[in-house]
Amino acid sequence: MAELPAEMTAVEITAPGGPEVLKPTRRPVPVPRPREILVRVEAAGVNRPDALQRAGAYPPPPGASDIPGLEVAGTVVAAGAEVARWAVGDRVTALVSGGGYAEYCAVDAGSALSWPAGYDAVRAAALPETFFTVWSNVFDRGGLKPGEALLVHGGTSGIGTVAIQLAKAFGATVVATAGTAEKCQVCRDLGADVAVNYRDEDFVAATKAATGGRGADVILDMVGGDYVGRNYEAAAVEGRIVQIAFLRGSKTTVDFTRLMLKRLVHTGSTLRARDTAFKAGLAAALEDKVWPLLAAGRLAPVIDAVLPLADAARAHALLEADHVGKIMLTP
Amino acid sequence: MAELPAEMTAVEITAPGGPEVLKPTRRPVPVPRPREILVRVEAAGVNRPDALQRAGAYPPPPGASDIPGLEVAGTVVAAGAEVARWAVGDRVTALVSGGGYAEYCAVDAGSALSWPAGYDAVRAAALPETFFTVWSNVFDRGGLKPGEALLVHGGTSGIGTVAIQLAKAFGATVVATAGTAEKCQVCRDLGADVAVNYRDEDFVAATKAATGGRGADVILDMVGGDYVGRNYEAAAVEGRIVQIAFLRGSKTTVDFTRLMLKRLVHTGSTLRARDTAFKAGLAAALEDKVWPLLAAGRLAPVIDAVLPLADAARAHALLEADHVGKIMLTP
Repeated sequence: MAELPAEMTAVEITAPGGPEVLKPTRRPVPVPRPREILVRVEAAGVNRPDALQRAGAYPPPPGASDIPGLEVAGTVVAAGAEVARWAVGDRVTALVSGGGYAEYCAVDAGSALSWPAGYDAVRAAALPETFFTVWSNVFDRGGLKPGEALLVHGGTSGIGTVAIQLAKAFGATVVATAGTAEKCQVCRDLGADVAVNYRDEDFVAATKAATGGRGADVILDMVGGDYVGRNYEAAAVEGRIVQIAFLRGSKTTVDFTRLMLKRLVHTGSTLRARDTAFKAGLAAALEDKVWPLLAAGRLAPVIDAVLPLADAARAHALLEADHVGKIMLTP
Repeated sequence: MAELPAEMTAVEITAPGGPEVLKPTRRPVPVPRPREILVRVEAAGVNRPDALQRAGAYPPPPGASDIPGLEVAGTVVAAGAEVARWAVGDRVTALVSGGGYAEYCAVDAGSALSWPAGYDAVRAAALPETFFTVWSNVFDRGGLKPGEALLVHGGTSGIGTVAIQLAKAFGATVVATAGTAEKCQVCRDLGADVAVNYRDEDFVAATKAATGGRGADVILDMVGGDYVGRNYEAAAVEGRIVQIAFLRGSKTTVDFTRLMLKRLVHTGSTLRARDTAFKAGLAAALEDKVWPLLAAGRLAPVIDAVLPLADAARAHALLEADHVGKIMLTP
């Protein structure tokens, strides 16, 4: 094993606040626990939960690093005693519960996957958070089946771009919402059958029209607010609505009559707090069912920008302004 | 086949309104369709949807009789050409989509079951609506498993008394709510581990206390209104909340944060509009898993009152006032 430095550069949240509170700092290089590997980070993804954490609204779960960052790709430089699958020198991409904005990151061995064939670190690091989230919520929790219809809000977000592509790859009809004509075109280019500019079109009517009046079988929603009641309208009988965030607020007034009469299932989840066994199960499913599609180029992460790690503040400003797809950091 | 009369007595809804709009009338005896049996009604159950229908708030589904009444027990007096299982003279109890408040009722053959051993018509007719509803919502839709905890609101309603007994018979912990000390005692007598008088005790705190802080795995709710948000509080991680009515209203303001963070499933259903194949599946499950328990006396319908069919108006007044368990009519 190559000699590891004692310290590394990382980006910390100096105080709850706007993007400017993110500042480079020096921290000890993490020591992997028995079931962890230590990864020399070559790229890290920026995700919306990072911004919530920065603002003080989403504390890291117990045991997680206070450094933000939920996904990294790089090279294994050390492995805990109980790690069988990975060896020093392997290239992995991994979902982490924190600590991604750094030169080194300790990773649970089960949450790591190989890079898809032909991938580089940036593209590999753009995968975990969105693919774990979409797989878990759209396919496992939402139970989307071939021939069914998916309505996905925020079609050009990191999550949205993956949901559109995965649902199409697995044989669903996809309706996506976005806020500009250009973003709607991006959704269509990614495979969406119908893209709805929510600023001047009613997504309920558009979803009904796209499904012969049936409505959506699965709705992936990160908007909340008035979308909750409208999702109940847009859903098909026995439709499943999966809530993964509340950009317009989590408190809203809803009439639940449709939920009962249409036998809807309204559910939701967050990924970060799940245990390592759950994440390892998702990783295995993705490696089996989705990594071959990535290697074959049938779908791909959409990357908006790649910035140096030290520019994490600028990356967060971009995340909260206008972007299409993933924002990445490179140490 | 014995000679059947051309006409019968039935109770009709003369206009939308209070109990007094229910009046005896003369109607033609129904002619069974090929997959139906004609039952000479010896007892019929009164259910809350009948009262909603009477008030004009719940129109019968397409093809259903305008005569109220969702469950009957009696003797088969004629069978359609495609009916194999039942013969004239058989005693059956059945879920129907309407027409129960009458001397004769046409019944889909798949929605009929034999009387549990030792049962009379009144007790047999008290079973279908509540047992189909509880089985479908608590066990199938809600997925209640042995060792889990059920919270059931309206513990002394027809639905509530069955939910308490069935959940206990299948190994769950049961918390029930009711509005008086006497009704709470009825809940405990039926097997509820904890009964909460909702007028002076918080059911959220009581449910947490009864489950070591975990909360309820399944909640059967017919209340709605402010109970929706409180159910989200009372539910365990991965809890399922099944909505079968909205006695306090279906429109309410809710914070959905808990639904996402606890990965709750909020769903619901109504029984009446389901197709005959669905009801036949429920009937088969009940005959297999529940009828032996009824025959053995391990659980039983709770019957509040038995009134003559002509007194349907009085039965509805009783339904909307104070009662414990089922209200039955006999032609």
